[in-house]
Amino acid sequence: MKRLTDTERDAALSSVPQWRYAPERGGLIHREFVFADFTQAFAFMTQVAFHAEKADHHPEWFNVYNKVSITLTTHDADGLSQRDIGLAHVIDTIANTWTRI
Amino acid sequence: MKRLTDTERDAALSSVPQWRYAPERGGLIHREFVFADFTQAFAFMTQVAFHAEKADHHPEWFNVYNKVSITLTTHDADGLSQRDIGLAHVIDTIANTWTRI
Repeated sequence: MKRLTDTERDAALSSVPQWRYAPERGGLIHREFVFADFTQAFAFMTQVAFHAEKADHHPEWFNVYNKVSITLTTHDADGLSQRDIGLAHVIDTIANTWTRI
Repeated sequence: MKRLTDTERDAALSSVPQWRYAPERGGLIHREFVFADFTQAFAFMTQVAFHAEKADHHPEWFNVYNKVSITLTTHDADGLSQRDIGLAHVIDTIANTWTRI
């Protein structure tokens, strides 16, 4: 899995506009979600967990009550890879099935 | 839910010796767990999630692959309460049902 070039990265980021790019650790993307309550937040995480495991690409995430903060990066590529963009798309699709605050 | 006094806190902490006390935010406890892989880490989190919801007391937690970092504090009490100690005991019990690294 290769790190995206700057050009590839810019094109990819435009397809996931709700994710914020940060240059740390070679490049990562980050998004925060706020749900109605803890059970919805954790149900969302559970759906994401199954997809992440299937894709063998896992998020770094933090949860407190109804909030979920997700960071995606590819350690093996020292930055952002196509796998992160793919997982971001899946996460957005799952998130859109929930009513969020 | 009241914040533990210093004396109560010291006694309570001795019952959960694997949790590290930190004075930030009025007082919190923290513990890290390392599992065999992501599915075990997330299964552990799922078990904790059900207990947390039932007790209406939720962790602040971070996961990346097989690692889970948990912080417990009671916002309403501006620090550590008996609820945190109770949840720490439950988490320890659940963690001990898994083979960890």
